[in-house]
Amino acid sequence: MDQGTIYMGVDVSATAVKAALVNAEGEIYEITQEAIGDDPDAILDGICRSIERLRERASEHHWPIRSVGVGVPGLVNVQTQRVEAAPNLPALVKVDVTEAIAERVRCPVLIENDANMAAYGEFVCGAARGRANVIYIAVGTGIGAGLICEGQLYRGALGFAGEFGHTTVDPDGLPCRCGNRGCLETIASGPNIVRRARERLFRDRSSSLSRLAVPGKGELTPERIAAEALNGDDFSLMILEQTGKWIGIAVANVLNLLNLDMVVLGGGVMAAGELLLNPIIAEVKRRAFTAMVAHCEIVASLLGGQAGVIGSAMLARDTFR
Amino acid sequence: MDQGTIYMGVDVSATAVKAALVNAEGEIYEITQEAIGDDPDAILDGICRSIERLRERASEHHWPIRSVGVGVPGLVNVQTQRVEAAPNLPALVKVDVTEAIAERVRCPVLIENDANMAAYGEFVCGAARGRANVIYIAVGTGIGAGLICEGQLYRGALGFAGEFGHTTVDPDGLPCRCGNRGCLETIASGPNIVRRARERLFRDRSSSLSRLAVPGKGELTPERIAAEALNGDDFSLMILEQTGKWIGIAVANVLNLLNLDMVVLGGGVMAAGELLLNPIIAEVKRRAFTAMVAHCEIVASLLGGQAGVIGSAMLARDTFR
Repeated sequence: MDQGTIYMGVDVSATAVKAALVNAEGEIYEITQEAIGDDPDAILDGICRSIERLRERASEHHWPIRSVGVGVPGLVNVQTQRVEAAPNLPALVKVDVTEAIAERVRCPVLIENDANMAAYGEFVCGAARGRANVIYIAVGTGIGAGLICEGQLYRGALGFAGEFGHTTVDPDGLPCRCGNRGCLETIASGPNIVRRARERLFRDRSSSLSRLAVPGKGELTPERIAAEALNGDDFSLMILEQTGKWIGIAVANVLNLLNLDMVVLGGGVMAAGELLLNPIIAEVKRRAFTAMVAHCEIVASLLGGQAGVIGSAMLARDTFR
Repeated sequence: MDQGTIYMGVDVSATAVKAALVNAEGEIYEITQEAIGDDPDAILDGICRSIERLRERASEHHWPIRSVGVGVPGLVNVQTQRVEAAPNLPALVKVDVTEAIAERVRCPVLIENDANMAAYGEFVCGAARGRANVIYIAVGTGIGAGLICEGQLYRGALGFAGEFGHTTVDPDGLPCRCGNRGCLETIASGPNIVRRARERLFRDRSSSLSRLAVPGKGELTPERIAAEALNGDDFSLMILEQTGKWIGIAVANVLNLLNLDMVVLGGGVMAAGELLLNPIIAEVKRRAFTAMVAHCEIVASLLGGQAGVIGSAMLARDTFR
């Protein structure tokens, strides 16, 4: 059976490398996932190992790989194709990732910020298909975003656009690893949701999570908070509602600035589903212009955890035509 | 002498109509300004009277007017060419401005948000010439903005993009006329700068402005505060510095989101010049990503009060080719 041309999409996160073989319609044929160890120098090896394995699978099936897209968590300079900053994976800054990968796969390779890749995936074959002006927001260990403006991936001057997690929502708030204070990320990222929950659980003992508040007594995670909220735990619901309120402030700002057709919310923390989505929508309605809100759909990601690999493959498809 | 083709640019504000005859290079040949009265029904008449007068001047000189651009303070629907909301000039919502003007001038007419027009002016022949990604911010009675993305005027889904003044900078702040609370406009617009100054002057009697704090005792205006600051009045300097701090928070957010080449600041309040510009730049440096700040110039408008009429004429030029 002729599978047509195949594209490889790679999604590098702080903890794992996901890679997939994707056809021209964005369907995944093969997907692999590999944990990244703590050794910073081994990260590029890990990425290349995943790519190598998939390349072997492709050649077994006689699938020709046309091009490779790699999404990385950091600031990617669109002109030099180099990673300029990657707080969670500093090792990527020192090496020429594009060059190193291209040597192994012998086909065109493109690197791009991971949230931009996922945004492109949702735009080409996910929730935002057919919409011209879109923000995709990934709420996870960090908070990233990718923008589609007038039907094109918007990268900005150097390729750094989309640092939505570093919107100041609380001018006198906590210091952020970016150097600012009161960034959305200091309140609403996965680790900060856990921090806020833990701080309050020392005071509020009514929640089923209270026993997890003490360090060492089991693991308190955003997924656990979401699960307890689904079970009706008031404390967990309150934590999600407050998280949604802060995300909603930043979304309302973007809506008023960009008059978007759609906001797509993804990333691990969005596993909480409507319990987080609804408070976000409520806050946006309270704050953004009525005419802007009425026009804009605010929805959960359709591609979920695969938005990154699909988007990476699709951007490679559309870049090297 | 052959003047080539002429374009008319009109800039409607809450208090006046400015209209100009502009050549293809953005040079102004004739300019008129007329105050707008309090009668809402007379506003359209006022706009048309200005246009009529300029049209006569053009025909005296045998200058053929090719097209007319009209900037209005409000949300302009780009598809319907109707004003959908105009808090400062509600009369514009009820009538078909484009149609009414087109009947008088018998040439193509375009309406657009006033800040978008000024942004386009700065982009085509002002401070932002040759820059691909730009925000123009007008700080005046309100705070508006226009965006240039990848070398194009960015309007968003319906044409409402650029409501930068309604960025939430203080989540629990004062109610805004837009329905939100804590918008930048509730702190940093001209009238709100005066409000903040007045509130503090009741407590602080050391400023040369103190006698103006009591209503009825002369006029306290942003221009007056800027003038006193230039004279070295500490209180006025402090008011400007705090204003710059709040504007800087919102500019840093936009920079992190859009990775711009340039931020252009205009509008009446920017008459304070560097006394306001410098605190804005300082706050942006404190808050935005270093790589984004390093790439982006933050400057005062080059076209000043004429950005609107020039931009309106230039957008008409480029729309009806």
